[in-house]
Amino acid sequence: MATPVRSGPSHTGRPVEQPLPATPGAGQDEIRRQNLGAALRYVHVHGPTSRAELTTRLGLNRSTIGALAADLAAAGLVTEEAEAPTAARRAGRPSLVVSPRSGRVYAHALSIETDRLRAARIGLGGRILDLREVPRPPGMPVLDAVAPLAGLVRDMGASVPADALAVGGAVAVADTTRDDAGGIRIGADVDHLGAALGAELAPGPGFVAGDMADIAGLAEHVRGVAAGVDDVVHLHGDLGVSAGIITGGRLVTGHRGHSGKVGHMVVNPDGLRCGCGSRGCWETEVGQNALLRHAGRTGDRAGVLEVLRAAAGGEPTARAAVHHVADWLGFGVANLVNVINPDLVVFGGALREVYVAGAGVVRRRVDAMALPASREHVHLRAAALGRNAALIGAAELAFEQLLADPLNAAAAG
Amino acid sequence: MATPVRSGPSHTGRPVEQPLPATPGAGQDEIRRQNLGAALRYVHVHGPTSRAELTTRLGLNRSTIGALAADLAAAGLVTEEAEAPTAARRAGRPSLVVSPRSGRVYAHALSIETDRLRAARIGLGGRILDLREVPRPPGMPVLDAVAPLAGLVRDMGASVPADALAVGGAVAVADTTRDDAGGIRIGADVDHLGAALGAELAPGPGFVAGDMADIAGLAEHVRGVAAGVDDVVHLHGDLGVSAGIITGGRLVTGHRGHSGKVGHMVVNPDGLRCGCGSRGCWETEVGQNALLRHAGRTGDRAGVLEVLRAAAGGEPTARAAVHHVADWLGFGVANLVNVINPDLVVFGGALREVYVAGAGVVRRRVDAMALPASREHVHLRAAALGRNAALIGAAELAFEQLLADPLNAAAAG
Repeated sequence: MATPVRSGPSHTGRPVEQPLPATPGAGQDEIRRQNLGAALRYVHVHGPTSRAELTTRLGLNRSTIGALAADLAAAGLVTEEAEAPTAARRAGRPSLVVSPRSGRVYAHALSIETDRLRAARIGLGGRILDLREVPRPPGMPVLDAVAPLAGLVRDMGASVPADALAVGGAVAVADTTRDDAGGIRIGADVDHLGAALGAELAPGPGFVAGDMADIAGLAEHVRGVAAGVDDVVHLHGDLGVSAGIITGGRLVTGHRGHSGKVGHMVVNPDGLRCGCGSRGCWETEVGQNALLRHAGRTGDRAGVLEVLRAAAGGEPTARAAVHHVADWLGFGVANLVNVINPDLVVFGGALREVYVAGAGVVRRRVDAMALPASREHVHLRAAALGRNAALIGAAELAFEQLLADPLNAAAAG
Repeated sequence: MATPVRSGPSHTGRPVEQPLPATPGAGQDEIRRQNLGAALRYVHVHGPTSRAELTTRLGLNRSTIGALAADLAAAGLVTEEAEAPTAARRAGRPSLVVSPRSGRVYAHALSIETDRLRAARIGLGGRILDLREVPRPPGMPVLDAVAPLAGLVRDMGASVPADALAVGGAVAVADTTRDDAGGIRIGADVDHLGAALGAELAPGPGFVAGDMADIAGLAEHVRGVAAGVDDVVHLHGDLGVSAGIITGGRLVTGHRGHSGKVGHMVVNPDGLRCGCGSRGCWETEVGQNALLRHAGRTGDRAGVLEVLRAAAGGEPTARAAVHHVADWLGFGVANLVNVINPDLVVFGGALREVYVAGAGVVRRRVDAMALPASREHVHLRAAALGRNAALIGAAELAFEQLLADPLNAAAAG
């Protein structure tokens, strides 16, 4: 990934993790900043929340929560309204409900996918306010996407309310292991993408760039099938396969932000030559081309869906192809389960449909290969957020600065 | 690993990470606790430190550091003495030097190794105060080690000063994937080890248990070749191979504490049947038995050392055996480099000598298989702490509670 997303705070607003101060010395300002961030993160993730519930969830006293909510409201980040009277409400003074100002505070979320470029405005709280896309011509270099993406962002600008607050931007890039020549290495251009977008759209908030697997995994962790799960391997299939790895509630980035290149874990030393120069990489066995090859077809994503449909209809060659790929999918998952000991493995992107078609085969291979103590507790699940996961995750990344330091970020926005 | 070592604080006292409070709400007591912990951790890791340097390193003001040091001294955890006059010292009032009370404050560090049981008293600051060992009979079940280890601890008790403070204990266990019957699964008995030791030695501090690779990796991270490095894969070879994985300065434990079972990552689907039930696991290619097999020998650790000596002397069969194992060692390392993107891979335990003997072969395989962006920046190094790494790491684990909350832990100790 380009700008490494440092393994910083937990992204779920649950009371396990904390934004980390830059130095060990914690003073009054730091506490206030942490508590404002925790309160804003809570309503961002969980939606409108009464002051009473915030008091309980954050373990702070009532007057502190009141002051924090008032500060966040004054900064234009949340609203406070009296709870609608319901039969369920207990007697006593109604607690004010704190809601994220989704229509006012927003992030720019962009994605460079294999076949299209997308741009969205996503409001605090995760609401998609606007979403545009244009096709991506086959083989279009990553940096050539800057101008059309900037165009989409400018188009969206026309309908942005005058008092709106843009807090940042992020872009998710598919297949960061492919460079512009189609070779497999980590595309150096991705490193420059955030800066190039920022320059193109200046003045305005900056952009960070990241790998689709990391960013879509973040989305599933905050709002999808991995919500509340601290140890997750999120597999994203595209032309290749990569992983967003979350351990202890934090995204693993690796030393230079390149962790999770699981598609180039070698599983079959006697297998096919891979574009990366190695042989028998996992993606040579479970990528789109592997499925097509075993089904005796050529083509692209549409061809893959055809094979999956044929397999569902009982066509023997297609069924065998799905079985073969699902078996190798389980093989790599078993390795990752032994190395990472996740609670949950999520299958996203193009791997979602392959997993759904061959879930039993995948599970059997994991059960045959992973150590009992690790495999017995691991859940395998299809991704929940579909093709919007990348945009939702990019928004989470873009909101990070605001959630770490709400008042300063709001003042600077 | 038995008691999962949660990916909590950074263990180096560097100003990157912080002990995490249990709830997002941070109050005055919490700040004081964090700052006391940061100051004590700093002198524990870095040794005697002047107040002036602590002020700079922790980013706190002079009076705060003075108060923290006084509190730690009053609790009997550190001493404060005037700096010895040196030519190098700048003019002005001499800064008091804060030193950990290594002779008074100590942890019990134990290890269950393949061939011996060891027990040490290790003082704050990492000084080994006492160290005893007895042989471990071949195949001795883990829980049968409780009584002899407790005996060693009791023996050491005779020379403990009357005012000493024992703050906790930890035990590192080799080959936690082997159960008492010699089968490969995660030995359930390890889960009960900490409690059994605590019960045997009650009343006294409790014990946590962990995998040797994690614990020796922690030692290398705090005081060894991985000091100051945030993304580390520490490989530990014994009968099998496992890894302690550190990302973003935190030990990865996985969902149930079983991460790093890299010896059961399958690298050779056509390889040998492994004791875990799978085939071609990494440890079937790089474990002690693989080297002996390729050298046409049988035996144990002594046999391995003989093969390495013969290879160093130019004996062709031994050289070929080392080459073969080093090549497969690089193969698995390349996979881990692609998955984790570490800054550093450390070879410890029995793998240390194999790595030293075949470092060039290992590096060439990594360069042939790992993606350029990840392999270009990865360092490969032999472990620095030798066979004391497990005890030093166990002490770090045992000190964790004290370093997280110095005054309460000191009062309870």
